[in-house]
Amino acid sequence: MNTRVFRNISYGVYIITSLDGGRPTGCTANSVMQVTSSPATIAISINHNNFTNECIKKEKRFAVSILSETTKPSIIGTFGFRSGRDTDKFNGISYVTKHDLPVIEDSCGYIICNVIDKMEAETHTVFLGKVIDGDVFNESRPVMTYAYYHKVIKGRSPKNAPTYLPEEDKEQQVNKSKNVCEICSYVYEGETVPQDFKCPICGHGAEYFKKL
Amino acid sequence: MNTRVFRNISYGVYIITSLDGGRPTGCTANSVMQVTSSPATIAISINHNNFTNECIKKEKRFAVSILSETTKPSIIGTFGFRSGRDTDKFNGISYVTKHDLPVIEDSCGYIICNVIDKMEAETHTVFLGKVIDGDVFNESRPVMTYAYYHKVIKGRSPKNAPTYLPEEDKEQQVNKSKNVCEICSYVYEGETVPQDFKCPICGHGAEYFKKL
Repeated sequence: MNTRVFRNISYGVYIITSLDGGRPTGCTANSVMQVTSSPATIAISINHNNFTNECIKKEKRFAVSILSETTKPSIIGTFGFRSGRDTDKFNGISYVTKHDLPVIEDSCGYIICNVIDKMEAETHTVFLGKVIDGDVFNESRPVMTYAYYHKVIKGRSPKNAPTYLPEEDKEQQVNKSKNVCEICSYVYEGETVPQDFKCPICGHGAEYFKKL
Repeated sequence: MNTRVFRNISYGVYIITSLDGGRPTGCTANSVMQVTSSPATIAISINHNNFTNECIKKEKRFAVSILSETTKPSIIGTFGFRSGRDTDKFNGISYVTKHDLPVIEDSCGYIICNVIDKMEAETHTVFLGKVIDGDVFNESRPVMTYAYYHKVIKGRSPKNAPTYLPEEDKEQQVNKSKNVCEICSYVYEGETVPQDFKCPICGHGAEYFKKL
């Protein structure tokens, strides 16, 4: 099997949110798809180890914020490379509340779902959500595709992502004149990371970068 | 609810294939996503009325052919706007057989799955497939996104698609100087459709076009 074929599946980039009791929490995701048109339902895939998985199971609802090419990349890092179990991911993030659920303001729009079914795969849960509301914030903002995140923002997939490929890590090692963020695998293109540099994806400083 | 938000979910364009006994069959789809990375599984959503749905349920396996921007658009039409119940969709289509399943040659690559679970939604089935094989035919072929299909090829969604929006049909009616294909809703940009014109999506002739 040539696992590079999985790179040819197209996605967007989303923040899936729910509640931990009353506290907002969430994670970055790419595996989101519409399942039916009428009534509208969507499916998402969330790793069993993601705190958001537990929260969705308890709350039986979730929100999808659809990211734009112009969304700050640090939002992807905050929600993708830290755990909501021990961090308040919403600290410093502007959000609005829709049907009690947090929605990222710096996005193209949102979809609110009640969980009506789920299917367990080995490492992830597929949640089926019935859409109860949704809106577009700004029709002219370009939607961020997963390809854009990889190619333009130079972002990586967390190990918990359905689309994580260990090959990517190996390929990076071929290039010896680069530095990689140990938290999110963002690649700094250059010999030396400046001391005041902050990773644009996860926000960690130069001390978290190691030479390849 | 503003259903236009569903247009902000990103997808690719795929041909999902299976077998009707020994006869190859399949349909066009956009709702395909990876669910787990290791072991690799993917989920697809197929309408209950699609003949391919029945065939996958009987065969318990399917193949995903990943379309390219350079794939002939008529392939999308053949598999998206006709039924395999009464048509041999593979007539005139080049395909190769992988693990007994038909794979479209004019594509970027393929993924072969055994069905390991399924979840029924009101009009569609979500099949969970364990990936048993997959390959890329040509790394340099650009993958077709669903946005490209809509914006560049000017393709439409069949009524059976998870992403079908009745609004799209209404919006078309605003423009009075166009002709629309009654089979696949492809819009011919011009007052009169030439007699020898064939719809680039579904292949039907000028007689199937009506003025908006």
